[in-house]
Amino acid sequence: MSDQDDSGRKVDNSSDKEKEVILDLSRENRTGLAEAIFCEAKQPNQLVEICEQIKREERSMLFTRMGQAQYAYLEERFSGLVQYDPVSKTGIVAPQEIRSESQIAIVTGGSSDIPVAREASRTLEFYGQPSLNIDDVGVAGLWRLLDRLDELSVKKIIICIAGMDAALPTVLGGLIPSSIIAVPTSIGYGMARDGETALRALLVSCAPGLTVVNIDNGYGAACAAIRILNSF
Amino acid sequence: MSDQDDSGRKVDNSSDKEKEVILDLSRENRTGLAEAIFCEAKQPNQLVEICEQIKREERSMLFTRMGQAQYAYLEERFSGLVQYDPVSKTGIVAPQEIRSESQIAIVTGGSSDIPVAREASRTLEFYGQPSLNIDDVGVAGLWRLLDRLDELSVKKIIICIAGMDAALPTVLGGLIPSSIIAVPTSIGYGMARDGETALRALLVSCAPGLTVVNIDNGYGAACAAIRILNSF
Amino acid sequence: MSDQDDSGRKVDNSSDKEKEVILDLSRENRTGLAEAIFCEAKQPNQLVEICEQIKREERSMLFTRMGQAQYAYLEERFSGLVQYDPVSKTGIVAPQEIRSESQIAIVTGGSSDIPVAREASRTLEFYGQPSLNIDDVGVAGLWRLLDRLDELSVKKIIICIAGMDAALPTVLGGLIPSSIIAVPTSIGYGMARDGETALRALLVSCAPGLTVVNIDNGYGAACAAIRILNSF
Amino acid sequence: MSDQDDSGRKVDNSSDKEKEVILDLSRENRTGLAEAIFCEAKQPNQLVEICEQIKREERSMLFTRMGQAQYAYLEERFSGLVQYDPVSKTGIVAPQEIRSESQIAIVTGGSSDIPVAREASRTLEFYGQPSLNIDDVGVAGLWRLLDRLDELSVKKIIICIAGMDAALPTVLGGLIPSSIIAVPTSIGYGMARDGETALRALLVSCAPGLTVVNIDNGYGAACAAIRILNSF
Amino acid sequence: MSDQDDSGRKVDNSSDKEKEVILDLSRENRTGLAEAIFCEAKQPNQLVEICEQIKREERSMLFTRMGQAQYAYLEERFSGLVQYDPVSKTGIVAPQEIRSESQIAIVTGGSSDIPVAREASRTLEFYGQPSLNIDDVGVAGLWRLLDRLDELSVKKIIICIAGMDAALPTVLGGLIPSSIIAVPTSIGYGMARDGETALRALLVSCAPGLTVVNIDNGYGAACAAIRILNSF
Amino acid sequence: MSDQDDSGRKVDNSSDKEKEVILDLSRENRTGLAEAIFCEAKQPNQLVEICEQIKREERSMLFTRMGQAQYAYLEERFSGLVQYDPVSKTGIVAPQEIRSESQIAIVTGGSSDIPVAREASRTLEFYGQPSLNIDDVGVAGLWRLLDRLDELSVKKIIICIAGMDAALPTVLGGLIPSSIIAVPTSIGYGMARDGETALRALLVSCAPGLTVVNIDNGYGAACAAIRILNSF
Amino acid sequence: MSDQDDSGRKVDNSSDKEKEVILDLSRENRTGLAEAIFCEAKQPNQLVEICEQIKREERSMLFTRMGQAQYAYLEERFSGLVQYDPVSKTGIVAPQEIRSESQIAIVTGGSSDIPVAREASRTLEFYGQPSLNIDDVGVAGLWRLLDRLDELSVKKIIICIAGMDAALPTVLGGLIPSSIIAVPTSIGYGMARDGETALRALLVSCAPGLTVVNIDNGYGAACAAIRILNSF
Amino acid sequence: MSDQDDSGRKVDNSSDKEKEVILDLSRENRTGLAEAIFCEAKQPNQLVEICEQIKREERSMLFTRMGQAQYAYLEERFSGLVQYDPVSKTGIVAPQEIRSESQIAIVTGGSSDIPVAREASRTLEFYGQPSLNIDDVGVAGLWRLLDRLDELSVKKIIICIAGMDAALPTVLGGLIPSSIIAVPTSIGYGMARDGETALRALLVSCAPGLTVVNIDNGYGAACAAIRILNSF
Repeated sequence: MSDQDDSGRKVDNSSDKEKEVILDLSRENRTGLAEAIFCEAKQPNQLVEICEQIKREERSMLFTRMGQAQYAYLEERFSGLVQYDPVSKTGIVAPQEIRSESQIAIVTGGSSDIPVAREASRTLEFYGQPSLNIDDVGVAGLWRLLDRLDELSVKKIIICIAGMDAALPTVLGGLIPSSIIAVPTSIGYGMARDGETALRALLVSCAPGLTVVNIDNGYGAACAAIRILNSF
Repeated sequence: MSDQDDSGRKVDNSSDKEKEVILDLSRENRTGLAEAIFCEAKQPNQLVEICEQIKREERSMLFTRMGQAQYAYLEERFSGLVQYDPVSKTGIVAPQEIRSESQIAIVTGGSSDIPVAREASRTLEFYGQPSLNIDDVGVAGLWRLLDRLDELSVKKIIICIAGMDAALPTVLGGLIPSSIIAVPTSIGYGMARDGETALRALLVSCAPGLTVVNIDNGYGAACAAIRILNSF
Repeated sequence: MSDQDDSGRKVDNSSDKEKEVILDLSRENRTGLAEAIFCEAKQPNQLVEICEQIKREERSMLFTRMGQAQYAYLEERFSGLVQYDPVSKTGIVAPQEIRSESQIAIVTGGSSDIPVAREASRTLEFYGQPSLNIDDVGVAGLWRLLDRLDELSVKKIIICIAGMDAALPTVLGGLIPSSIIAVPTSIGYGMARDGETALRALLVSCAPGLTVVNIDNGYGAACAAIRILNSF
Repeated sequence: MSDQDDSGRKVDNSSDKEKEVILDLSRENRTGLAEAIFCEAKQPNQLVEICEQIKREERSMLFTRMGQAQYAYLEERFSGLVQYDPVSKTGIVAPQEIRSESQIAIVTGGSSDIPVAREASRTLEFYGQPSLNIDDVGVAGLWRLLDRLDELSVKKIIICIAGMDAALPTVLGGLIPSSIIAVPTSIGYGMARDGETALRALLVSCAPGLTVVNIDNGYGAACAAIRILNSF
Repeated sequence: MSDQDDSGRKVDNSSDKEKEVILDLSRENRTGLAEAIFCEAKQPNQLVEICEQIKREERSMLFTRMGQAQYAYLEERFSGLVQYDPVSKTGIVAPQEIRSESQIAIVTGGSSDIPVAREASRTLEFYGQPSLNIDDVGVAGLWRLLDRLDELSVKKIIICIAGMDAALPTVLGGLIPSSIIAVPTSIGYGMARDGETALRALLVSCAPGLTVVNIDNGYGAACAAIRILNSF
Repeated sequence: MSDQDDSGRKVDNSSDKEKEVILDLSRENRTGLAEAIFCEAKQPNQLVEICEQIKREERSMLFTRMGQAQYAYLEERFSGLVQYDPVSKTGIVAPQEIRSESQIAIVTGGSSDIPVAREASRTLEFYGQPSLNIDDVGVAGLWRLLDRLDELSVKKIIICIAGMDAALPTVLGGLIPSSIIAVPTSIGYGMARDGETALRALLVSCAPGLTVVNIDNGYGAACAAIRILNSF
Repeated sequence: MSDQDDSGRKVDNSSDKEKEVILDLSRENRTGLAEAIFCEAKQPNQLVEICEQIKREERSMLFTRMGQAQYAYLEERFSGLVQYDPVSKTGIVAPQEIRSESQIAIVTGGSSDIPVAREASRTLEFYGQPSLNIDDVGVAGLWRLLDRLDELSVKKIIICIAGMDAALPTVLGGLIPSSIIAVPTSIGYGMARDGETALRALLVSCAPGLTVVNIDNGYGAACAAIRILNSF
Repeated sequence: MSDQDDSGRKVDNSSDKEKEVILDLSRENRTGLAEAIFCEAKQPNQLVEICEQIKREERSMLFTRMGQAQYAYLEERFSGLVQYDPVSKTGIVAPQEIRSESQIAIVTGGSSDIPVAREASRTLEFYGQPSLNIDDVGVAGLWRLLDRLDELSVKKIIICIAGMDAALPTVLGGLIPSSIIAVPTSIGYGMARDGETALRALLVSCAPGLTVVNIDNGYGAACAAIRILNSF
C-alpha cells in the first residue's frame, strides 16, 4: 500500500495492493452477466493484475472504454490475449460460441453513433449473440428507415441508438412490435448538452414501451438484451 | 400612485396611475406587428384602462393569456367589445379583414396541444390571415401525418406544435420544403419538465432549418409567420 | 370549431370538433400495443367523444391518469363502461382475457410507490397479463428483499419501482438474472427533485443491464414488458 | 466491418464499411435543402468515402464544422475539390449560381460572433443566395445599430447573431418589420454558460415574432432562411 | 416552547417563545441599514411579538412580503401602527423624514414589474429617500426609453427592473453614466423560468458596470442604493 | 387489493392490503435507529393500520411530516396515543426516557428555520436525548452568534440549520471544534431555489469537516447525531 | 473578406476586414466608461488592427483576458505600447493619472481569488483610481477579517471577491456600512460548479444591500465602482 | 506586488507579496483542525513561501490536490520536507504520532474510488489516526460487502466512498449502527454528471442518519471524522 511506502509509518491497513480490485467472478452464476472491466479510470498496473488473474484461471472477460494506450500496454505483456476493437474501445478475452441466429438488431440514427453501436454489438458477441447492424437511418430522411422495416420487424429486440433529438426510437416504436432498448448518444452541440437532450426526449417519448439506458451506454443496452434472451 | 395613498407622504414620483401602462401604439408602423396585451399579471383596473383607450381611439387589439374572470370583468363593463375564446384564452377587438387564401397550416402532435394551436390561429385571425388546422397527428402513429402531407406541402408556412419529445416537427422537416416554426408545449410529465425537453429536442433537431419559439408560445409563432408574410 | 363560434368570422379551417382527437386504432396491429388515453389534459367533452366511439365500435380501451372527477363525469353518462381504480387512476374498458401464469413481478421500495405499481399492474391486466406484486421491500431493510428472492427469481420480468435514491433495482440487479425494468418515482423531498435523482441514479446504476422509463411511468414499464412477452 | 477484422468470428452483420454513411441524396427534392455533412465526429476515411461519391456523381456538397486537419487530409487526396473557409470551418463543393439580389442580412453583436455569421453566409452562398454582412453592432453602443437601420429594413430576412445576453435581436425586433432568425452564440464566460443564457434570453424576448435556432448554429439559421425564400 | 406543551417532558431547552425572534436592533448603527422583517414565513404571533416590541421601544420598522391577511391581523391589534401598501406588500412604521431631492430613479420594463419597483421605492421612502418612478419603458419600444433619457441621466443611481430577457438595463447602461442596480423579475413563462433567465442575462450583460441583485428583490436594490448614498 | 375490487377479475397477486406496509421492526437492533414513518404520501388507512400494530405490540414510534389532518384522523381513533407537535409536524408514541445531560445543540440562522429545528429536537427527544436550542443567530448580525459561543463550544455535536446562503455553519465551523451537522433549509426566494443554494454552499464550505444532510431534513440530522452518540 | 478569397465568387457583402471590429469610441463620453477589449476570442490580426488604431489616434485602452501569447504577439509589433500584467491578464495603454486618495478596497477570501482581484485593481488603475488590496481573509478564520475592519470601514466601496461558498461578503455586509460589490469566483471543485454556487449564495445573502456581478468578473466590479464614483 | 512591477505607477496598495497567503495558524487551537493547503490554484512561488514559513516555524502541514509537478518543484528546494503520495495527491509535513487503535474504516464501492479514499486515509494519518481500508465492495456484488460486515461493525466511524449511483452507503446504513460519512465521487459517465448524481442519491438516501460531504472530498470526510473523535 502506497500510504506506507512514502510515509514509512505503520497504519492499520488491511487492504494491500493486490486486493485493490476484487473480481466479482460469481456474478455470472447469479445474474447471467459476467463482470466487465470499465477501464476508463483504471491504472495500467490494475489492468495487468486483472489480466494475470484471467490467464491463471483461464477465464473469459470483456473490457469496455479501453483506450488504445491501455490496450498497447496489455498487448505488450499478454500478446494476443485481448481481441481489441478501436472503434468501440472494447477488448474481449475468450468470448462464447455464437449460439444461434440473430434475434437482435442494432440501429443508429447517424454515422457518428457507430462507436456506441459497436460497443453494443461487441458485448453481444462476447455473449455469443450475433446482431444485425443498420446504420445511418435517422428520421430526417424517413425513407431510409422505411426501407429496412421488414428486416427490423422480425427481430425480437431492437437496440436503437441516436443522438441530438433522438427521434428515431420514437418513430420506430410506432411502427414495430419488438422490444426497443434506446441508447441516447452524446452527439450534437449547443443544447444537445452531451446527450442529455437525447436522453430526456427518449424518456418522454410519445411511443409507448420504449426503455432507455444511460448516454452512450452501448454495453448496458446489450446487457439488457442478454437479460431478456436469458429469461426465455 | 398607491405609495402616496397609504403613506400620506409626498414623494418625487412622476409616474401616476394612468401612466402605468404605456401603449406602444406606433409599434405596428415600425414592425408590422401591433402591440398585444399579455394579461397574465395584469390587474383588472389596468385592463379597464386599456379598454377605455381602445374604445376612445377606435383601435384594434389582441389580448393573450386572458383568464375567464378577466374577460367576464371586461365584458360587464364593455359589453361586446372583446371577442373571447376560452380555449386559447385570447381576446380580440376589431380584427383585420381576412385578406387572402390560407398560406399557413397549424399542426399539433396531440389533442392536448390544441390550446397553443388556437392561440396561434387566433393571432393570425387578428391579422387577417386564415389558417389550416390539423390536430393530433403525432409521429407515434406515423400514417396520420402521411395522410395529410399533400395538404401541408402546399402551405408556405407550417406552425408545428408538439409536447413531450416533440418529434413531429423533425419528421415533418424531412418531408416538406415549407418554412417550419416549431412550438414546444408543456404537455407531459416527469422528465418533460414543463416543456423544456420538447424545446431542447427541437433546437437540436436533425432536420435542418427548423426555427423555434418559447414553450407554449403560439402567439409568438404566429407573429413570426406574420413577419414572413409581410416581407413578401 | 370554437374560433368560428366566438368570432363569427369565416376561416379556412378544416379541423372540426369531432376530429380534434384522432384515435390511432390500427396501432395495436402494428405494435401489439393499443393506444391508451392519457387523461391529464383532456377536457370532459373530449373524453365523452372517445367513449362514444368505444361504445359504437365495441372496442377495448385503457385510460391513464384519469382523475376521480373525470371518471364520475363518464360514469354518469356511460354507466358501467369504465372499470376505474382510484389508486392507479386508471380506467379499463373490455380488458383481454387472463392468458397465462404470471411471468412478471412488480416490486416497490416503499408503500408510497404503490400508485405507480398499480398503474403498471392495471396496464398488464388490460393486456391479459397477471402479475405478482411485492411492496415495501426497500434496501434500507435488506432482509425484506432477501426474503422474497426465491419468488422473484422465477419471474421473467421484474418491474422495479423506487423513489428517493432508488437503490432497490441496483441491488436486485446484482442478485437475479431476469429482465429488470426500473421505474423511478417522484417520492421524496429536497434534492429528490420530483424523482429526477431517482432517475439519474438508475441510469448510472452499477448493476449492468437495467433499463429505465420516465418518472412515475408505471404504464410505460408495463408496455415495455408487453413488448418483450409479445416477441417470444 | 471492423468487428469481424479483429475477432475473426462470423457475425450476422449486414452493414459493411461502405454503407456506414448513407447519403440522403433525394432530400433536396423533398425539402429544398441538400444534405450537409456535419464533420465534427467524422473519421477521415468516412470523409474520403463521401468525397469519392461526390466526385463520381458530380454532385455539390456543403461540409460544416470541418477542422483544418480534416480539410488538409481531403485537399491532399482531392486537390481543389473543396473550397474551404477556416473562419466558418465550412467546405463547399460546386455551389449554386448566385441567383439574385441579396434579400438577407447577417448581423452580429460582437466581432467574436463572426465565425457563426460566416457559417451562415457560406451556407447561403452554397444555395446561391448573397447576403449583406454587418458586424459588431451590439446594443451596448446603440448608435452603431441605428446607423445601419436603413440598410437592414429593406432586407426580407435578418439573421441576427449575438452572445452573452443577446439583446441585439430584441432591440432590432422592435425597430424593423423583417423576419428575424436569431442565433445565440457561446461567447461569454461565467453565467453565459456556453450560450445557454443567450438562447434563453432570446426565447423569452419581449420583441414579438423572433425565431431562434440552436447555439452557434449559423448553418441552421441559413437553412431556415432558404426555406422561407423557397416558399415564395 | 411547544415541544414541552404537547410532550409534557422536560428537555434542556433554553430557547423560549419570546426569544424565537431576536431583533438585531444595533445593525443600523453598524451598517446604516435597519433590520427589515421578511414576513413570508412568519407566524401571526411572531409578527405580534415584533409589533409589541416596536411600540414599547418607539422604533421604526420596515416589513417586506407582508400578505394582506398578515396586515389585517396586525391592524386589528395595533390600529394605525403599520402603513401598508398592497402592491409592494410592504408595511412601514415611523419612516424617516424625506431628506433631500431625489437622487434615484426606478425604471421598469413592463407594467407587470411594478410590484417589485414599489418594493424598492417604499424601502427608499422608509429611509427618507424620494425616487423618480418611470414605468413600462421596455426596449421592444425603444422610443419610450429615449423620451425619458434626460430625466434619467441626472440621477446618481438607477434601479432598473425588468423580467423576461431583461434587455432594458443593458440598453440603459450603454446610454447613461449613472450607477445602475438591475433587478430581474419573475415575469414571463416557459424558459423565463421564474426570472432565472432575466438574472443570467443581466449577469452577462454586454454593458459594463451593471450590478445585479436577486430575482424580484426590490428591497435589496434599494438597500444597495442606500449604502451608496450613505458613503458620500 | 383494490385491483380485484373494481375489476372483478382474478389476478395472481400475492400482496394484499395488510401487507402493503411492512414495518422494519428489527432495524433498531441492527442500526440503533428505529424505523420512522414518513407520513407525507401515506393514506389515512395506512396510518391506521400502523397505529393498530403499534398498539397491539406496545411499541414506540416516530412519525414525521404528519399533517394536522392526519393527526386529527388518528387522534379520533387512537385517543392520546400520538403526542403531536404542529410546528415540526412530528408525532411520537412512547419515547425513550431522557438519558443524560444534553450533548447536542440545535442552532438556527433565522426564525423561519424553526420548524426544521424542532423536527430535529423532537427526533432527539424520541431517542431520549435532550438538546439545547438557540434560534435566530444568523451571521448578518454576527454578535448574536458570538454571544452564545461559550454555550455552544461545550456541546459534542451542533446541528446547525440555515437557509438562503447558509453562511452560519461555515462561520461556526471556524470557531468551535465540535462535530457540525449542517441542515440547509428551503427558506428564501428567487435563486434560493427551494434550498438548493443553501445546500450547495454548505457542500463547498471553506470551513473543513462540516457534514450535510438533505434540505429541511431535521430528522436525518438528528439520526446522524444518534449514530455518533451510540458509537461512544 | 475571406468568403471571397477562397471561393472567388462575388457576393453582396458590405463588411470588409477593417470594419470587422468597430471601436465604440464615443462610449466614454456617454457613460464615463471607455470601451475595453475582451481578448478571449480575438484573433491576433484583430488585436493588431485595434493597436494600430490606438496608436494612430493616441488613445488609451484597457485589454482584459489577454493571454501571454496574445501579449507577446503585440509586444513584438508595438514594443512598449501595452503595459501587461500576467496575473490579471490585463493590458493597459495610457492609463489616466491617479486622481485621488483611495476610496475603494478590494478584499479576497483566499489567495486563489487574487487574479480576479488584480483584474479589478488594474481596471481601477486604468481609470486613475488607487485601491487598497487585502487578500486571504476568508471567514473560516474570522479574526483575519476582524483585524482589518478599521481599514475597510473608511472606504466608500468594497469590492469583495470570494469563491466556494462566498460567505465573506455576507459577513462583511453585516459589519460595515460601505457599498459592497461582490464578485463570485470559480474557485472550488465538485458542487462549486465553476462559481455558480458562490454566485447563487451571494444573490440570496442574508446581508441586505449587496450587489453582485458575473463569476470572475473583476473588470465589471471595477466598472460598477467607477460608475458610483463618477456620479458623486 | 506585480501591479506595480509592470506599470511602474504608484498605487495605494497595502498588500505586498509576502502577505498574499495568510496562514491561519491558530485555527487548530480553536477547531482541532489545522489549516490545510489546497494546492490546485496555487502558484509555485506561493507554495515555496508556505514551505519556508513551515520550515522556519518547525510546523506540521497537510497539502491536498498537490500535482506531481508542484511536488517536484518543492522537493527540489526543500528535499525530504514533504512526504508525497501520488495516488491521493497529498503531501504531509511532520504528521502527528499514531495515537490509538483504528476507530475508523474507509470503504469504497469500486477500485476507481481509491484516490479519494487515500486522500481521506492520508488526512487521518496526518492527525495520528489509523484507518481500516476496504476497497471495491460495491452493492452490485452484495456478498463482497456482507463478507466484511463484522470488521466494519466494530468501527465507530465509516467513511463510505462511492460513485455512479452511490448505493453502497445506503445499504451499509441499513446494516450497521456506526456513524457513516458518505463521499460521492466523480466516477461514471453520461448522467453521472461528474458525481452530482451520486451526491444527490446520497442526500435522499432511504437509510436514515447518513451525512454527506462534497464530491471527491476525502479530505473533508476525514476532517469530519476528526471532529467526532476530538469531541469524545
